Amino acid sequence: MASMATVLVKTPNPSHSLAKSINAQLSSNVKFSISLKNPKLNPGKTYQKIRISCGLIEPDGGKLIELFVPEFQKDEKKKEAMLLPRVTLSKIDLEWVHVLSEGWASPLNGFMRESEFLQTLHFNSIRLENGSVVNMSVPIVLTIDDLQKQKIGESTKVALVDSNDNPIAILSNIEIYKHNKEERIARTWGTTAPGLPYVDQAITHSGNWLIGGDLEVIDKIKYYDGLDRFRLSPAELRQEFERRGADAVFAFQLRNPVHNGHALLMTDTRRRLLEMGYQNPILLLHPLGGYTKADDVPLGWRMKQHEKVLEDGVLDPETTVVSIFPSPMHYAGPTEVQWHAKARINAGANFYIVGRDPAGMGHPIEKRDLYDADHGKKVLSMAPGLERLNILPFKVAAYDMTQGKMAFFDPLRPQDFLFISGTKMRTLARNKESPPDGFMCPGGWKVLVEYYDSLVPSGNSKVPEAVAA
Amino acid sequence: MASMATVLVKTPNPSHSLAKSINAQLSSNVKFSISLKNPKLNPGKTYQKIRISCGLIEPDGGKLIELFVPEFQKDEKKKEAMLLPRVTLSKIDLEWVHVLSEGWASPLNGFMRESEFLQTLHFNSIRLENGSVVNMSVPIVLTIDDLQKQKIGESTKVALVDSNDNPIAILSNIEIYKHNKEERIARTWGTTAPGLPYVDQAITHSGNWLIGGDLEVIDKIKYYDGLDRFRLSPAELRQEFERRGADAVFAFQLRNPVHNGHALLMTDTRRRLLEMGYQNPILLLHPLGGYTKADDVPLGWRMKQHEKVLEDGVLDPETTVVSIFPSPMHYAGPTEVQWHAKARINAGANFYIVGRDPAGMGHPIEKRDLYDADHGKKVLSMAPGLERLNILPFKVAAYDMTQGKMAFFDPLRPQDFLFISGTKMRTLARNKESPPDGFMCPGGWKVLVEYYDSLVPSGNSKVPEAVAA
Repeated sequence: MASMATVLVKTPNPSHSLAKSINAQLSSNVKFSISLKNPKLNPGKTYQKIRISCGLIEPDGGKLIELFVPEFQKDEKKKEAMLLPRVTLSKIDLEWVHVLSEGWASPLNGFMRESEFLQTLHFNSIRLENGSVVNMSVPIVLTIDDLQKQKIGESTKVALVDSNDNPIAILSNIEIYKHNKEERIARTWGTTAPGLPYVDQAITHSGNWLIGGDLEVIDKIKYYDGLDRFRLSPAELRQEFERRGADAVFAFQLRNPVHNGHALLMTDTRRRLLEMGYQNPILLLHPLGGYTKADDVPLGWRMKQHEKVLEDGVLDPETTVVSIFPSPMHYAGPTEVQWHAKARINAGANFYIVGRDPAGMGHPIEKRDLYDADHGKKVLSMAPGLERLNILPFKVAAYDMTQGKMAFFDPLRPQDFLFISGTKMRTLARNKESPPDGFMCPGGWKVLVEYYDSLVPSGNSKVPEAVAA
Repeated sequence: MASMATVLVKTPNPSHSLAKSINAQLSSNVKFSISLKNPKLNPGKTYQKIRISCGLIEPDGGKLIELFVPEFQKDEKKKEAMLLPRVTLSKIDLEWVHVLSEGWASPLNGFMRESEFLQTLHFNSIRLENGSVVNMSVPIVLTIDDLQKQKIGESTKVALVDSNDNPIAILSNIEIYKHNKEERIARTWGTTAPGLPYVDQAITHSGNWLIGGDLEVIDKIKYYDGLDRFRLSPAELRQEFERRGADAVFAFQLRNPVHNGHALLMTDTRRRLLEMGYQNPILLLHPLGGYTKADDVPLGWRMKQHEKVLEDGVLDPETTVVSIFPSPMHYAGPTEVQWHAKARINAGANFYIVGRDPAGMGHPIEKRDLYDADHGKKVLSMAPGLERLNILPFKVAAYDMTQGKMAFFDPLRPQDFLFISGTKMRTLARNKESPPDGFMCPGGWKVLVEYYDSLVPSGNSKVPEAVAA
């Protein structure tokens, strides 16, 4: 991954005390507001005042909360963990430990207690002790069953261990409360229909109790899949943005291969930010690395594909940081897109690109999309705690047959545009056919063809649905 | 209803411009905070600072929004309405028109548009143009079907008419948007199980579209059921509280007959408020008057029962205002209790008494309560936009056999207390038996017996469930 290495290798060994120094810098930052007069740059209310700040956006709650045990205490904490009641973490639990440990969910300092859980379900936000409000739309909770609850008994701490019984973390000042699965699902997804991927994977068969508390993570979570070097923490990303002298960071969340429509959108966003007066906008291209449903393209293949896109020069490595966002996917549409945006604030992004039907999927049992395609960006633009974030709605890109490339759809000449659906893409890639020239860089397309080629044909005729056009 | 008349008859003919004058007064009010030192008065964080204000609490958004057509425009508006496309209001729709018209939902100025609807579903609150946040937890929406949508066509206004085609209101600057029933139900109730009363009554068979807009109501909504004089608007209630010189107003929402446990709670609350330093706390005893499920005791019978409670001197008419809250019931537990509290702020209440499982009910298809009994008060105490309201959690009252009366349950001598369940109550009333002396005043009990006596026995053996102990 030569290109990506050049993007990322410049990051010196990051230290976890970085957050503190960034924070100290921020307090002396000069911030000012401008009103944009150009109506082209100012299509909606959201953009009437763009805050240009000589420094990165502050993390939620004012400081980045990292939850690592200091080096000198590690042995002691490991020993302590061995003596505590144990809760074994699932793969998804471990991803949430990763998320919490690095401060993506700042100011959360552990798995949610009931008051945080209830505020998340009902308000998609949490009020802090100082009265300020931070966004929090997706429950970050740990389940235990009746037997585990009984074993924990009166202990105020538990050890969180991996599937090999290695201690990963300690959860202190614990609070155990009821896990009403139906209510959690209904309020998070807006449906209780069977077949929601995250629900099937992590909720339906989970325990009837939730355990919250203060988290102390012994070692940085690693996956040893060759991709750990791309898993930059919010502190490391902030350091990288500072190093590059970014005066704006725009985040692009994705869980699909990048085609030239995406690339057009990202380069166009950079152009708009430059026009707004920013000198050095940096793109955070931020593929999601946690749990995804079975028919999404796996992370490893996606990273290969992204590498090719950078190699082919579709995106400029000088102004792009590619990194992996460790969160699992909920596929909870307007509820989840808030989490995706909020976590990127903590990583230093002050602009967030939002597309059609973000974090959406088909309804599991009805023939329609689960969410209204416009609700994601509407909800995001109104979400409590995200007022500081500038939301950049996605323009629709399609294949312009007159130009032979991806372009923003022009409603005045619809006949010139070709919408290449996910189904169409998949069929082409599976059949080793090529999409129209200019739809995706050839290197990237080749990776996709290889991926589908690698799939063992399954007994039934259901074919993975992979790429949205 | 002699007693109630003495409570209410003192209110002079209220004028709808009252809100303005109250508001003007409020702007010059002196407000100050005290910290309570007595731990008995200060059991939780919520009470650390009680704001004592020389005037009523401000309505949400700063002013009470009444939506009545001025007298001189009524004829003109009626004529205009006759020429507009029509939407026929159901009984529940009409109750919402009532609610909106009097400003219970201030600052809403009509049925919700999509941005208000989405904020309600996702955040239980709405952000105003000035950046402040008001609570709004229950969608106040009007449904139309495909045919009605087609008939409305490009019109920017519709007339809302009653079942006899009489024009009730005009809805202007309308916005028609999709009514995703499943998502609305899931996010409002935290379940999509069949059998939710409001859903069955008002959502399942309703149209696939919602129509929002600015509401202008031609005449005050009346029911001609002998109870209209008890339907005081927020402006009228504020006038009454001002007239009585209230320096605190504590609201008690109810949809059940009042027993002596309730009465104990209300008199004890008054005592606590006096101890806190208030000179003249007034109780707003506020039975809900809109739609209730079939097995609740109907409003007329409840009002008769409340009358007897006042006649028997269980509550002091001098410090009690009995009035009817026109909202329909959702039975949406922690979501709905916020609406119940928010509406009472608009009526001038700055203290709200919240009990066990407020606005709750049994799960429609599982053998358990739909909501955790403690979630209502927890959610209420954390709800955005309700920070100004002082939440008074309900103490558990039960029949103390040693004293022969209702008393606060003492966990040190549980054997002395008798919990009289709703089922027990119903069985007693149906069988014309008496509850233990001191459970309910005899006059009130007699009304209940009469009510159950009046019920025509139905074919199946299901008996209405009426009174919670």
